[in-house]
Amino acid sequence: MPASPARPLYLDDLKVGDIFVSDTHALDKEQIVEFASRYDPQPFHLDEEAARDSFFQGLAASGWQTAALSMRLMVHSLPVANGLIGAGTELSWSQPTRPGDVLRVTSTIKDIQPSRSKADRGMVTVESITTNQHGERLQKLTSKLLVFRKPASA
Amino acid sequence: MPASPARPLYLDDLKVGDIFVSDTHALDKEQIVEFASRYDPQPFHLDEEAARDSFFQGLAASGWQTAALSMRLMVHSLPVANGLIGAGTELSWSQPTRPGDVLRVTSTIKDIQPSRSKADRGMVTVESITTNQHGERLQKLTSKLLVFRKPASA
Repeated sequence: MPASPARPLYLDDLKVGDIFVSDTHALDKEQIVEFASRYDPQPFHLDEEAARDSFFQGLAASGWQTAALSMRLMVHSLPVANGLIGAGTELSWSQPTRPGDVLRVTSTIKDIQPSRSKADRGMVTVESITTNQHGERLQKLTSKLLVFRKPASA
Repeated sequence: MPASPARPLYLDDLKVGDIFVSDTHALDKEQIVEFASRYDPQPFHLDEEAARDSFFQGLAASGWQTAALSMRLMVHSLPVANGLIGAGTELSWSQPTRPGDVLRVTSTIKDIQPSRSKADRGMVTVESITTNQHGERLQKLTSKLLVFRKPASA
């Protein structure tokens, strides 16, 4: 159960049940509005006043910002040797990410499938839960990652 | 088959099969590197030289950038009255997004489920395909959106 392994990880280094815990990222109103203005320009992500009367009942971060910040936290906490290469992913948001939230991602290896056709690689299913400083779940991200075996020369 | 409806859309305005086509966004190397440095700092998203020797065989945009830009294009092309509020989503990337790609999103209404418990709303499944200027599919995003009925007063 490594917390923040420094070495690059190959397919054979991973076991189902392994857990990787990230550092944290503190999100504030300015970051929420800046991201939204570029990628998700909707009133409830841009303006406190407008957000109050919306479904979210207050300023909420774009779900894509929660996803993008979770990715950054994962890049540093799950150091797969060839990088985090995802073929696809499922995302769900349990509750909005709010100004002042401090994000942390806990990734758990759920499945490992060596490739049948290519001996040097496999597909690893990782479940990454993003929580805030209160331990409340904000996002669940399930990714299928392409992970390579350690080359004989390495 | 409205291309870019200006009016806000309510649940009753949508039909399975409706198609919404977005404007375009041209992506360049600078945008790719800037996004990656903030959200997905991996060599194949940051550095052309390093990317050449990677799985991607050249600079590739973070999949989260393709997703975030697709969201922006959807905000303007799919004007749901109360905003695009997603409970969850599935994402897959068919091929990397490259410098010079011009993104466009085509969203198709796949399913409409009125809520059983709340008469004022429903869940709409939308499939959004992001393509480049060659018509090549970069991303498929399947979202479940919360959409409200037109209020009697509206």
